Amino acid sequence: MPNEHDAPPTAAVLLIGDEILSGRTQDANLAYIARFLAAFGIDICEARVVRDVESEIAGAINVLRERFTYVFTTGGIGPTHDDITADAVGRAFGVTVDHNPEALALLAPRYKPGEFNEMRRRMARIPQGAILIRNSVSTAPGFQIANVFVLAGVPTVMRAMLEDVGPRLSKGRVVISRTISAHVGEGRIAAGLAQIQHENPSVAIGSYPYSAETGPGVQLVTRGREGEAVEKATAEIEAMLRVEGIISGRVDV
Amino acid sequence: MPNEHDAPPTAAVLLIGDEILSGRTQDANLAYIARFLAAFGIDICEARVVRDVESEIAGAINVLRERFTYVFTTGGIGPTHDDITADAVGRAFGVTVDHNPEALALLAPRYKPGEFNEMRRRMARIPQGAILIRNSVSTAPGFQIANVFVLAGVPTVMRAMLEDVGPRLSKGRVVISRTISAHVGEGRIAAGLAQIQHENPSVAIGSYPYSAETGPGVQLVTRGREGEAVEKATAEIEAMLRVEGIISGRVDV
Repeated sequence: MPNEHDAPPTAAVLLIGDEILSGRTQDANLAYIARFLAAFGIDICEARVVRDVESEIAGAINVLRERFTYVFTTGGIGPTHDDITADAVGRAFGVTVDHNPEALALLAPRYKPGEFNEMRRRMARIPQGAILIRNSVSTAPGFQIANVFVLAGVPTVMRAMLEDVGPRLSKGRVVISRTISAHVGEGRIAAGLAQIQHENPSVAIGSYPYSAETGPGVQLVTRGREGEAVEKATAEIEAMLRVEGIISGRVDV
Repeated sequence: MPNEHDAPPTAAVLLIGDEILSGRTQDANLAYIARFLAAFGIDICEARVVRDVESEIAGAINVLRERFTYVFTTGGIGPTHDDITADAVGRAFGVTVDHNPEALALLAPRYKPGEFNEMRRRMARIPQGAILIRNSVSTAPGFQIANVFVLAGVPTVMRAMLEDVGPRLSKGRVVISRTISAHVGEGRIAAGLAQIQHENPSVAIGSYPYSAETGPGVQLVTRGREGEAVEKATAEIEAMLRVEGIISGRVDV
């Protein structure tokens, strides 16, 4: 059980790939990892997207692994020439990258005799000292080295790898979140909301406006690790909206 | 006309907001900005997502504005207490942030007498020396200071602001992209692909696998600023696939 006074574990996500920066691919991994880690009480504090350039990947890994409890990378661990994440991680940690016998043993049964070629064997190149991350979808493994988890970019494979990673993570107190949807422009209630935030410093109140056919609306999200504090602030927001005569309701998220 | 030997302009995107890191909101702005800038020949070289914390926003802006031709931020410019991007930008540049007369004049007509309250006037707080970015959707402006463009987080508003930003940007040679879809696992063609990449260093060849009901497939994307070089490498990939007896076709993207 985590001690409630411990600082919660933190995480960063590093998305690797030219295709995300060019707009060709819409990333879906960050939000999935965030929701996965939320169940462990782990907050993602920063995310970065870098190109398929070894020095840039290695540089980002070294900055992030110093600052956060965990780093999760996605992308660049396939068999082709543009898959350079293992080499970048080796460079970041100053270790060699070689064919890993356990990874070779996982991959070999997928192929017919003679088809486990040199490029496919690239997927078994793992930095020295890393331990494998299994994946039930394609068998090609990811790996963990120290506090860095190296995952696939293909979402179905990435998600399978997270299942193997979960038991390795320290748990923090889970963040509780309550959302109120209100039929009002956020500017009208911003002063009241700021006052409630000021009086409830242990929670974070976010205001997310949207446009509906019936007019402007806003989702008011209260987040925190102390359930009573979250409920208290949420009730105060509801009371404020009631006094103002604004239609609102809780949203299940 | 850009000189073809000039280094193309570069850009970074900074997405600001707890809601993206918590997985509550799926970002759609990065891919949109990437496609918008592609038409100007501007490459996004890095993206970051940071929390609603003034020091983190300011720190990221200062790193990115030194390294890239342009920085585009999204989010945190509304009227509520969690909208702190203007203050963070002021801090990054070491300038004060005050009510901007031009921004006040844009915003005031939206409101009935007495409704343009202090929180709504927050949307007119602009760092000294910045120039406004108009938006035809909600009228609340973004702003530009030096090479940093501060945009809204709401996608419809962000997109309107980009239209105002476009004429301010230097143009580079546009990247040309050709995509081939092939019905094959990427491991089988990875060696041939690496060879073609090696022989065509002026283009970048990306290999993006996918799973279809009919078996594995891969999209092979060739990108570069020299049209002839892109066509040559693409033709070589097609020839390699033909020799291997692999069904493939060009994809319009």
